[in-house]
Amino acid sequence: MPNPTAAMLVIGDEILSGRTRDANMHYLAGQLGQTGIDLTEVRIVTDQHDRIVAALNDLRGAYDHVFTSGGIGPTHDDITADAVAAAFGVGLDIRDDARAILKEHYARTGLELNAARLRMARIPDGARLIENPVSAAPGFSIGNVHVMAGVPAVFQAMVAALLPGLEHGAALYSQNLTIPRGEGEIAADLKALAESFPALAIGCYPFQRDGAYGATVVVRGAEKADVDAALVRLAALFPEAMG
Amino acid sequence: MPNPTAAMLVIGDEILSGRTRDANMHYLAGQLGQTGIDLTEVRIVTDQHDRIVAALNDLRGAYDHVFTSGGIGPTHDDITADAVAAAFGVGLDIRDDARAILKEHYARTGLELNAARLRMARIPDGARLIENPVSAAPGFSIGNVHVMAGVPAVFQAMVAALLPGLEHGAALYSQNLTIPRGEGEIAADLKALAESFPALAIGCYPFQRDGAYGATVVVRGAEKADVDAALVRLAALFPEAMG
Repeated sequence: MPNPTAAMLVIGDEILSGRTRDANMHYLAGQLGQTGIDLTEVRIVTDQHDRIVAALNDLRGAYDHVFTSGGIGPTHDDITADAVAAAFGVGLDIRDDARAILKEHYARTGLELNAARLRMARIPDGARLIENPVSAAPGFSIGNVHVMAGVPAVFQAMVAALLPGLEHGAALYSQNLTIPRGEGEIAADLKALAESFPALAIGCYPFQRDGAYGATVVVRGAEKADVDAALVRLAALFPEAMG
Repeated sequence: MPNPTAAMLVIGDEILSGRTRDANMHYLAGQLGQTGIDLTEVRIVTDQHDRIVAALNDLRGAYDHVFTSGGIGPTHDDITADAVAAAFGVGLDIRDDARAILKEHYARTGLELNAARLRMARIPDGARLIENPVSAAPGFSIGNVHVMAGVPAVFQAMVAALLPGLEHGAALYSQNLTIPRGEGEIAADLKALAESFPALAIGCYPFQRDGAYGATVVVRGAEKADVDAALVRLAALFPEAMG
């Protein structure tokens, strides 16, 4: 059975403006790879209601899972929960269990649970909460959409809480070989290798270091034996390669 | 007149697998911001023909410019030029001017212009070349789609060659203020500020540092006077803030 597929939707003015370099996408990609869920597409959209709704509806129809990051805090630019409720056509209101979590957290930290913070207890009807051990305010899953915070420490904690409960496949097995030649010199052999192992994904990533060209070949597949066999073939073709 | 809009399409197995952390998106976002072209959406798709074609057709219809990165090298997994030609419904063949550029480069470097390297002279009919001062093999523009390499040094050189020739608007003016309070405490004031300055984009980005909460408020707009006025108001509300 093929692995479940996934997309990520980043609600990301701060990334599109060039202010911040993505961290959550890179983290999620690594975690999903280890879990056996295939991250197949990422979209980053501006913090605008209609764009978030449209992207959510595109992606949740096309993939088994959609993971979002950003826009679930207490400020006026946090509009993800509203957009998710609109995409699913359900109501959005403060929910007792989410409010209780916030109440307990703010009582313990001596801060006021004011109207802005209470917004973080607004949960679309029918959603399940995702635990936030870092700063309490929960994420949520509705249908196949999993809504998480944009702050990296919180995002990572929510991913850790969420992933073990999702159906998953087998992690892809992956091996690298770095060849100290320009990719134009190894391209013909790589193409033949890819044709011999149609079940494997064989990627070639060139680089230039200290004026010399090189390429890292990444071989990925579900079967360790296939990947290993391709690596043996590759190493024989390029004895100067480094594992 | 509003700024031109743009999307970026990253052909990115190596990013989706978690192997590589994005650099080109962050670079392009910064450059477009300074140029006055509004980066509005980014998509990252796997190295699969149909997905690249579908994303190209979606994005080139929705935005003034589409910038792509990745998949124009000499190896079997470099399929971007084929996908672009298919998306535009035009032919793709080795072109004399592109071949001449490669011939000159490989003659100078003493390397062979073999069949794999010649693939990099395949240019969709009607495209304009984008210069590559780093490693010669050109990118190209066709319609409103600009196709560039994935290797960051080459991508950056191509962006530098391309951007001055594109129509652009005015760079957004941007100011930050970092407030040593949780965003839940400043949310009501920020909301009122955003309502007073509807032409500005006011974003709030929380963080936790050494156990203390804080938030960076980013104010962006076309008019410096508006941004400055909002900053003065903000600084008066939060005298403990740091610019």
